Amino acid sequence: MANTSIQGRDSRLRFKYVSTSGYTSKWMGEAKKQIVILGGGFAGIYTARSLERMLRPEEADICLVNRENYWVYQPMLPEVISGSIALMDVVCPIRRLCPRTNLVMREVEDIDLNNRIVTVSPGFRPRAKKIPYDYLVIALGEVTNYYGMPGMLENAMPFRTLADAIAIRNHVIHVLEEADVEDDADLRRKLLTIVVGGGGFSGVEVVAELNNFIREVKKNYIRLRDEQARCVLVHSRARILPEMADPLALFAQKILKKRGVELILNDRLVAATSERAILKSGVEIPCKTIISTVPSASPPVLQKLDCAKDKGSLVVNTGLELLGHEGHVWALGDCASITTVSGKVVPPTAQHAVREATTCATNITAAIQGGKPSRFTFEGLGTLGSLGHGSAVAQILGVKISGFLAWMLWRNIYLLKIPGLKSKVRIGIDWFIHLLFPSDLAQMRLEHESGIKNQHFEPGDIVFHEGDLGDSVYVIEKGECEVIKEEDGVAKSVATLQAGNYFGEMALLSDVSRNATVRARTALDVLLIPKGDFNRLRQSVPAFGEVFNELARKRTSNVERER
Amino acid sequence: MANTSIQGRDSRLRFKYVSTSGYTSKWMGEAKKQIVILGGGFAGIYTARSLERMLRPEEADICLVNRENYWVYQPMLPEVISGSIALMDVVCPIRRLCPRTNLVMREVEDIDLNNRIVTVSPGFRPRAKKIPYDYLVIALGEVTNYYGMPGMLENAMPFRTLADAIAIRNHVIHVLEEADVEDDADLRRKLLTIVVGGGGFSGVEVVAELNNFIREVKKNYIRLRDEQARCVLVHSRARILPEMADPLALFAQKILKKRGVELILNDRLVAATSERAILKSGVEIPCKTIISTVPSASPPVLQKLDCAKDKGSLVVNTGLELLGHEGHVWALGDCASITTVSGKVVPPTAQHAVREATTCATNITAAIQGGKPSRFTFEGLGTLGSLGHGSAVAQILGVKISGFLAWMLWRNIYLLKIPGLKSKVRIGIDWFIHLLFPSDLAQMRLEHESGIKNQHFEPGDIVFHEGDLGDSVYVIEKGECEVIKEEDGVAKSVATLQAGNYFGEMALLSDVSRNATVRARTALDVLLIPKGDFNRLRQSVPAFGEVFNELARKRTSNVERER
Repeated sequence: MANTSIQGRDSRLRFKYVSTSGYTSKWMGEAKKQIVILGGGFAGIYTARSLERMLRPEEADICLVNRENYWVYQPMLPEVISGSIALMDVVCPIRRLCPRTNLVMREVEDIDLNNRIVTVSPGFRPRAKKIPYDYLVIALGEVTNYYGMPGMLENAMPFRTLADAIAIRNHVIHVLEEADVEDDADLRRKLLTIVVGGGGFSGVEVVAELNNFIREVKKNYIRLRDEQARCVLVHSRARILPEMADPLALFAQKILKKRGVELILNDRLVAATSERAILKSGVEIPCKTIISTVPSASPPVLQKLDCAKDKGSLVVNTGLELLGHEGHVWALGDCASITTVSGKVVPPTAQHAVREATTCATNITAAIQGGKPSRFTFEGLGTLGSLGHGSAVAQILGVKISGFLAWMLWRNIYLLKIPGLKSKVRIGIDWFIHLLFPSDLAQMRLEHESGIKNQHFEPGDIVFHEGDLGDSVYVIEKGECEVIKEEDGVAKSVATLQAGNYFGEMALLSDVSRNATVRARTALDVLLIPKGDFNRLRQSVPAFGEVFNELARKRTSNVERER
Repeated sequence: MANTSIQGRDSRLRFKYVSTSGYTSKWMGEAKKQIVILGGGFAGIYTARSLERMLRPEEADICLVNRENYWVYQPMLPEVISGSIALMDVVCPIRRLCPRTNLVMREVEDIDLNNRIVTVSPGFRPRAKKIPYDYLVIALGEVTNYYGMPGMLENAMPFRTLADAIAIRNHVIHVLEEADVEDDADLRRKLLTIVVGGGGFSGVEVVAELNNFIREVKKNYIRLRDEQARCVLVHSRARILPEMADPLALFAQKILKKRGVELILNDRLVAATSERAILKSGVEIPCKTIISTVPSASPPVLQKLDCAKDKGSLVVNTGLELLGHEGHVWALGDCASITTVSGKVVPPTAQHAVREATTCATNITAAIQGGKPSRFTFEGLGTLGSLGHGSAVAQILGVKISGFLAWMLWRNIYLLKIPGLKSKVRIGIDWFIHLLFPSDLAQMRLEHESGIKNQHFEPGDIVFHEGDLGDSVYVIEKGECEVIKEEDGVAKSVATLQAGNYFGEMALLSDVSRNATVRARTALDVLLIPKGDFNRLRQSVPAFGEVFNELARKRTSNVERER
């Protein structure tokens, strides 16, 4: 029943939904209240945990929808990149954190505020699942958004989730492996350059961890021991860590510089290709790794929601109720625009999210049991940022601390705050082992063939060189490129291709290397069809193959005519 | 230089290659010998380690080509599935194990025995890399091969590498999550059924670990606590563990059965669909998880090698030299067909591979320094197999042991044998933590959209149901299917589709749900193009889109004409 459309608000129908779940069997009196929490970050998980404490099982069913079945301890994520915390030790299974909560490991596809139904993505069967609610908590966080930044989506790696951290770690190990094998000094320099965008806490922690990691493991690469590696942090303001006081930010800058991190201030990433990062000032940094910790936007499912918003964030009152849906819908965490009772804007940090969760759970409990609702008054305790290798900056209750003491504080506070004894023990052991042994540098290679994808080139970029292996076919979506052949040592442009044109099919159809070089004339967006997919499509959809066969025939006869 | 074609055997040219590597700078006398090892399993890694001990750096450069930059401690891989060993603790970075060896993290694409050149796959630049050698060690192991088993490639998960183990773990957690959400009892049963093919050591250890894992973590799934989970082991002979004596194999069978594993003997997997495993006897097991530990074949790059072979394996003499290439090429590990001096066939186990490595390294050293070559005489010490949860079977130097004592032996022997103090410490800690805390059940979800792929259906299988969401387009490669519509409660076949026909485009083109059910009439092979790829191709390659637009127009007008 639950995976078909339920339109009515009839409680019997809703009861039918919950009754199939099995966990209401002992209690068959009146329909229990259905609480649905969207998102499993700090805000969502702590709301579920508080509700489990505040409400009896007979009073409400709690359902939490999250893409993953684990919760990530976000502040420690940068340490996963360097391997000082083992991959799975920064996460905690949601089912263990919230044993009474019914977890739905799906994506949220739609929120119907009028009919009070949440639609989640299909599972093994291609049918969407509808989940009706009495009380809804929206805590979906933010997503990365590269709108207006050409090539960033294709070439920059976001840093937000555990999957992102693992992808960055694997990519960095991959570039080190390739740099060790590569004979071209130019390409080797690109492989050894890493650009991080955004000088907030996560950008600073990521660049610090990466820089420490690369400098340590480089020793294990026979040919890289004497090579320079560059870690560049790009930040849009005059100094990094805008959340901190001047002296602390300047201390952090000094430490980073001392360790070899390059700082580029008053500038920002605006575009990227597979060969370089392009900054607003016009500076270009040749590199094979771009990590971006900015900018953020509201998740698409909230963008289409028709309610009060402030720059995309959901506007709530001091009881965290969504304006216009008070008493039924709460919004908290990074996706909400919250002001405290005293009128201060609440920043998107873990310490605030945890307190928002308590306020929200108290108010839902009040809605069910009656009682006085709570208002959000938490003003923050301070900020902490780790620079790795025994150094950090902290600003707690007005006191500024930097260096080793701040670092000890950082480790102790966060270890104390992580829920569950197992996680505390495992992370403590990880840190201890990291003191005794060198960093792990195993690359957990899981990716399959990449599939059909987009790619972006800036004017002058080489798409491929004459003589390269043919590994994909290109379709131009925007821009122009020219085909260049070398004759008697002189490069000659033989054709210009435009949007809608295809190229690169010759090498794939005849299984030879590229017979010409292709270079972008303007900014160029292409669809890239890899060899495997191209051949499968060509065999199965003859009309698709014919497009390319005909093109190849035409190109061959042109060449022959010219002779 | 090294990434372009080097055809000559001139030593100056080879010297030019090595001189760019930087690690020969101190030694400029005569050209060093180039030793190339293919494969980083037990055989390859231990050969490199032995060579590093036996040869001085001035005598030879050692190069090892492996797909990954780590070595896997294979005997402990099944414990990764259940999480009793943390993901990355069963691996060891090759650069740490063999600090003097030059690692090339690429795939071996070609071996030219006549010109003594190995070609490896391209890296960031699409150019193949050629590596010349004086001495070659081939230790590429085996690959999984589902030839003649329809649907296995698409639906069965192999168990061989770390990536396989992680994929199996993630998939099993995924089916548990879905089973917890699913309301259809039939589908829930399929989600909770796991079929493992092959009753050798790895099949037995995998099914034992999975069975223990599922029974333990099921408690955390509110709706699955009272559900039955089925773990089925299918083996082709009358009893499992053919490498062991009767009493031990029967003991293992008793333990497995007691813990709830179902044994199906004298039968084997022959085909699979996304909904069920099909056995030779005709028995069909509805399930969503099929793991196959058999059968194996020689890697493709060795299949095309022109040399003496026995059932695909490379035939070597007792000095492990490849027949016809003595003094230059050695083959060892699972890809080689080896007989000891006493004439016994050598089984593909770790203990043998390690001894083969010593023999091989001794003989390469003899070839360089002069001296007496060694012959392979190792006859094996015994066999050990873990059943998890404090039970194992062991047969050592003729003595048979089973139960807890065998399990202690298993853990101690393997912990002792794993190289490196860090790994010993980490695995020891993992085991200790696993005694104190429940199994971790976080699913490390990394996969992206699946891309264009093949799928197999058996006669009568439903491809999709009327009313499902349209998530992909299908192209028939082989077989027939029928389109079924329900009218006034009666299912009516409205069309039959054959090889070359397309279906499923209607729901994607108009973004509605499926307007008919499609069922396989015969065994059916299709190419499945997911929605994202379909739309990208349609926009960029108009001729591709036109095929489906026209089809949709035809189908719509047919329906209208019928009315």
